Amino acid sequence: MLDVPAVLGGDRRALARLLTQIENGTAAAEAALAELYPHTGQAHLIGVTGPPGSGKSSLVNQLALCLRRGRAAQGGLPARAPASVAVVAVDPSSPFTGGAILGDRIRMRDLAGDPSVFIRSMASRGSLGGLARATGDVVKALDAAGFDKILIETVGAGQSEVDIARAAHTTLVVEAPGLGDDVQAIKAGLLEIADILVVNKSDLPGAAAAVRALRASLDLAHPAARRWATDSTGHHGPALGSVVARPEPEAGAGPWWVPPIVATVAIESQGLETLLDAIDQHQAHLRATGELARRERERLAHELESRLRDQLLAELRDRLGPLALDAALNQVAAREKDPGSAARELAAQALRL
Amino acid sequence: MLDVPAVLGGDRRALARLLTQIENGTAAAEAALAELYPHTGQAHLIGVTGPPGSGKSSLVNQLALCLRRGRAAQGGLPARAPASVAVVAVDPSSPFTGGAILGDRIRMRDLAGDPSVFIRSMASRGSLGGLARATGDVVKALDAAGFDKILIETVGAGQSEVDIARAAHTTLVVEAPGLGDDVQAIKAGLLEIADILVVNKSDLPGAAAAVRALRASLDLAHPAARRWATDSTGHHGPALGSVVARPEPEAGAGPWWVPPIVATVAIESQGLETLLDAIDQHQAHLRATGELARRERERLAHELESRLRDQLLAELRDRLGPLALDAALNQVAAREKDPGSAARELAAQALRL
Repeated sequence: MLDVPAVLGGDRRALARLLTQIENGTAAAEAALAELYPHTGQAHLIGVTGPPGSGKSSLVNQLALCLRRGRAAQGGLPARAPASVAVVAVDPSSPFTGGAILGDRIRMRDLAGDPSVFIRSMASRGSLGGLARATGDVVKALDAAGFDKILIETVGAGQSEVDIARAAHTTLVVEAPGLGDDVQAIKAGLLEIADILVVNKSDLPGAAAAVRALRASLDLAHPAARRWATDSTGHHGPALGSVVARPEPEAGAGPWWVPPIVATVAIESQGLETLLDAIDQHQAHLRATGELARRERERLAHELESRLRDQLLAELRDRLGPLALDAALNQVAAREKDPGSAARELAAQALRL
Repeated sequence: MLDVPAVLGGDRRALARLLTQIENGTAAAEAALAELYPHTGQAHLIGVTGPPGSGKSSLVNQLALCLRRGRAAQGGLPARAPASVAVVAVDPSSPFTGGAILGDRIRMRDLAGDPSVFIRSMASRGSLGGLARATGDVVKALDAAGFDKILIETVGAGQSEVDIARAAHTTLVVEAPGLGDDVQAIKAGLLEIADILVVNKSDLPGAAAAVRALRASLDLAHPAARRWATDSTGHHGPALGSVVARPEPEAGAGPWWVPPIVATVAIESQGLETLLDAIDQHQAHLRATGELARRERERLAHELESRLRDQLLAELRDRLGPLALDAALNQVAAREKDPGSAARELAAQALRL
């Protein structure tokens, strides 16, 4: 049995057991999640994504360390209280093997032994949407267990990023100089889900060009950003640890957010405090504008719909039996009936019962 | 109205119109697909995937050119008849914009004006699984329209690759030297969906190391490959255009396939004939072993299930009305009810009506 009070009380072993059950999709996990659900909604969910080679894992590691440490007020910067941190590392490129495990071990060197840090790697279970669902449930459990900040990292580029954007409050898109020709194309898509753009490895040649390219893309997406960038940062390269292009809201312009570009060198801990400030600012923005509630509702609507689909398909299987589905599949495979017609007929048949 | 006989007769404008309707998910497209479905199942579907920077688009371009041209028998190699070719370029990293269009234009320079080549770019429409469905339907239409070879290319790494593997008969995974640290991790996942491994840009430094790394991974996955690699190719680098590690079936070993590794330089047209031979061999293998029918059935089972889910959800919406879903969502957003319980109750309610 899963011990829900222990999870709520911060018992790591109980939490780990629950996460395993969630990954395996057991009925016990479902029941525990229903009990935990009223305790969710407290954590700040931070998604971290970007192409291979951008150094996402190192960045997540260093962010976790900085968040744990907190910061005293200094030089006009506000203090930041030490936070408890959970890391969920999702590897959708590893559909059949546990490829995320190695990264997990590497992480543990930096963060092991800290009771306020919890790390979980997840690999896809092969089913479309299954990983997104399981990740969402793991995040819920960590949220209910009381972690202040939950960093959700994915490898890869594609639909999985969009799903992360759905699951996180604040989405970081990480780039690095010199990742190859196709990267431009990826940027176009990722830009639209980014709340904060990070140019990591910004000590490498090409960092200034990478920032310029991102800024140009931002100009297209957010015309107001252009004005600001030209006025204040039009001529300098990526100052390490500085927010390169964060426009201030204009008087009367209403609540809006243009993704800032932050230059970092994660493995040398450069730029991380600035990045965390940008994350805090985004969280404050979400709260002040009501965007937090809007994103939350959209995410939950999506989850509810996805669960309904599963529930209804399970009911259909129960009602018609496996032979009905097999018979339909035989007709489709023999090209006697197209998949769309077969689905419509099966649904109608199940609903008449 | 969509002119199905014209599509079957090879009318490009009728085909283009149908594909647009498929992308928009219209009822007319559904009806046309039902009519076209008995004419599908003739084309060889070839998936091409791999990380950003591997040069997939150039490779697909060049493969299309070689397939169009065909080959006379020479030097012990069999002749290959000229084939009609369709290219479907899927960009799941571009969920909101038409980012694939630029690549499309670049392609057109090489292939424009050839009536036996058809190129279509697709960007995601934002819905989870929606792109995979639309791609499958576009491929069906091209299949029914009589194209011999359909090349399906995706940008990105992740779940979308698994879905391609489901949709294609033969899946090429493209790598290139020096794509960064994370690439190793991606290889682990992509390796398992690869029927043929391509090391493109193999004139770059690090090509031999890339081939060695892939071969080592193959050794782990297919112990028989190790024997062969040690015997025959254990000591040389990636010979351009040579199949670097294709073990022959052993006597009594039964029908099996170990992914060959083919070194190419797509932009200089090197290695492409060898790659096409490997593709032909894989097709022959699929036919000889019955694997073709097995893959087809698995793909159709997946499609049927996905359509059933959509169908049932649409029925539920009709039965309960939008207010019931909204009320449930309000309870979930207020954390009065968890999404799993809400879905179960809505499903039960709809099925009682």
